[in-house]
Amino acid sequence: IQSKLPKVGTTIFTVMSALATEKNAVNLGQGFPDFACDPLLVDAVDQAMREGLNQYPPMAGVLPLREAVAAKIEALHGKRYSAQDEITITAGATQAILTAILAIVRPGDEVIVLEPCYDSYIPNIELAGGTVVRVPLVPGTFRPDFDKIAAAMTPRTRAILVNSPHNPSATIWSAADMQRLEDLLAPTDVFLISDEVYEHMVYDGRAHESAARFPGLAARAFVVSSFGKTYHVTGWKVGVVAAPAALTAEFRKVHQFNVFTVNTPVQHGLARYMAEPGRYLALPAFYQAKRDLFREGLQAKTRFKLLPSEGSFFQCVDISAVSELPEAEFCQWLTTEIGVAAIPLSAFYADSFDQRVVRFCYAKEDATLRTALDRLAKL
Amino acid sequence: IQSKLPKVGTTIFTVMSALATEKNAVNLGQGFPDFACDPLLVDAVDQAMREGLNQYPPMAGVLPLREAVAAKIEALHGKRYSAQDEITITAGATQAILTAILAIVRPGDEVIVLEPCYDSYIPNIELAGGTVVRVPLVPGTFRPDFDKIAAAMTPRTRAILVNSPHNPSATIWSAADMQRLEDLLAPTDVFLISDEVYEHMVYDGRAHESAARFPGLAARAFVVSSFGKTYHVTGWKVGVVAAPAALTAEFRKVHQFNVFTVNTPVQHGLARYMAEPGRYLALPAFYQAKRDLFREGLQAKTRFKLLPSEGSFFQCVDISAVSELPEAEFCQWLTTEIGVAAIPLSAFYADSFDQRVVRFCYAKEDATLRTALDRLAKL
Ligand SMILES: CSCCC(=O)C(=O)O
Ligand SMILES: CSCCC(=O)C(=O)O
Repeated sequence: IQSKLPKVGTTIFTVMSALATEKNAVNLGQGFPDFACDPLLVDAVDQAMREGLNQYPPMAGVLPLREAVAAKIEALHGKRYSAQDEITITAGATQAILTAILAIVRPGDEVIVLEPCYDSYIPNIELAGGTVVRVPLVPGTFRPDFDKIAAAMTPRTRAILVNSPHNPSATIWSAADMQRLEDLLAPTDVFLISDEVYEHMVYDGRAHESAARFPGLAARAFVVSSFGKTYHVTGWKVGVVAAPAALTAEFRKVHQFNVFTVNTPVQHGLARYMAEPGRYLALPAFYQAKRDLFREGLQAKTRFKLLPSEGSFFQCVDISAVSELPEAEFCQWLTTEIGVAAIPLSAFYADSFDQRVVRFCYAKEDATLRTALDRLAKL
Repeated sequence: IQSKLPKVGTTIFTVMSALATEKNAVNLGQGFPDFACDPLLVDAVDQAMREGLNQYPPMAGVLPLREAVAAKIEALHGKRYSAQDEITITAGATQAILTAILAIVRPGDEVIVLEPCYDSYIPNIELAGGTVVRVPLVPGTFRPDFDKIAAAMTPRTRAILVNSPHNPSATIWSAADMQRLEDLLAPTDVFLISDEVYEHMVYDGRAHESAARFPGLAARAFVVSSFGKTYHVTGWKVGVVAAPAALTAEFRKVHQFNVFTVNTPVQHGLARYMAEPGRYLALPAFYQAKRDLFREGLQAKTRFKLLPSEGSFFQCVDISAVSELPEAEFCQWLTTEIGVAAIPLSAFYADSFDQRVVRFCYAKEDATLRTALDRLAKL
């Protein structure tokens, strides 16, 4: 058959996880924890199933979970969303982003993405018939270049996708960055899709600057997050999008004809579990300790040049001093020969731009990180 | 904001379920059971969560569930699909259908739907930029009219959507119907999307004639089913699509950038539970008893004219002898004043065609059906 999407292959995360399994490598590729979630969260879902909460929930999600999210955003960012009209539960953040794009991007509309970026963004825009406008983050530092973003904007710009804490670079946007984005978009009708799935993984005392905190952004934004990343259950596939009522109405028009709605007992379980804010407030310290363990190990045992890791699950390293292989081949080799899987940064660029940098995920048991470090020490 | 989908409202199922809740009506609208699933199924999911199976599964679904589906299709329909390359687990049948459409329908392609049809089909085609070609089922009998279908086919026809057992009419396609479809499509490259979510709800000794049974159809078909409908857990949102490897490859290109994958412990739980075929083999008798109870009650207590119910969860009735209201207003009134929610057939037509018929769902506790019948007796 003649493919509608000839350029699309299998997502790198699936490819590298499959290779890691096959080669029995420590999987520091795909971004997921290898440790258990809190048994109390499992209890809460089990409880909901036993209560018989197993039929269709409301299309937008169960109200207790939407209320819990609205309360959390208000507590953290001082912005009150309506649980009824402005919060929608999704089958993961990826589904939220595709659905937002399908809801607003018309054929021929331009959508700005900042590269490197998560590998679903560009195919998502293409599926909606939109034109992808790629703007690079500053090479080396991965900071937003607002002059370049401004230069990329045209009357046909329909939306811009941003992501902080950033996957793959592990940078985070400051309040000043967000204000510059707010100023830039102020005279326009451009929508914002703000991918904030690593909102709780911010380190060294920094704050997560959600788009929800900035009125000029919140008024035009789909703010996307993930319960899977937050509560160590990436396999449950539950996300959320907060957006002004008019945007939410458009979002739901597509959502209802995509997944319709999301697993009922998981939603109830999450709502009950979230009632205790300490559970997400503890996350920065928890993950910062893993980052520190992994960074110190890399520094002591390898010749990789470490990039900063301000947030997210990720540590990027420059491989120049270690290997002359292209990033993608290096990751294959590292998985196969050294027994540690990583993701090449080139997978986050439409043109596979190679800057000699690969990404490790440190959202792992300390023992897993130590095993990986021992193997990497052989380099 | 200027809507991209100005014609799309909130799906009728959400509207009527919300009204039913508000008015404390017996909800025979939306198609879901009001009884509990087997506690052994809950145990199986709980067990998988306790085993720590809570992170991303493989993109196409966990292999044991794909293998269980392949084994079931082979046992029932004599067609062997490859679990590895031809079966994909989805976040419900609706997501499967949108994803298949996004994967194959290019802007300007024509897609044939047979009306009345499920309300996601037409917006799904429009989201892909396709042109919807509506062909009516035979008025009154809801049988396929192959001359009309043949007349609707053009060189731009890319796909046809069919659905048996049929929602909303409760008719099922015979082997002869499927053969005529096979003959009709034989000289073409047209793809088939076969929505078979009610595959186990077929009555009076009839067989479900899956597209998988007909080689000329299976070779071009996305065969879609739903674990939620089958195992009384509509709120779990897990479906499946079986398709030849080349079609599956295109499907997964979109699937990975829509939901990426589906709830891990639910997939493992379903795989373990499905190992016992008696669990789905018992369904026709179980639902036929409910159909009979409900039909006999309607016949004894109301002046509705009953249409046949050969399969599915549904009983359609002609309301002419009872009310002069348009279908949609009748359903509103019935919910509000009589305390029984139903769905107007007009919701399944793009032009809201009104033929004085409404749909009841009898996938309910016998006590629920009796309460509804008592209320309907007041008409
Ligand atoms: C959906 S698989 C990828 C998980 C992830 O966010 C990443 O590894 O970047
Ligand atoms: C996804 S809500 C609708 C359930 C259903 O299949 C129906 O009621 O027709």
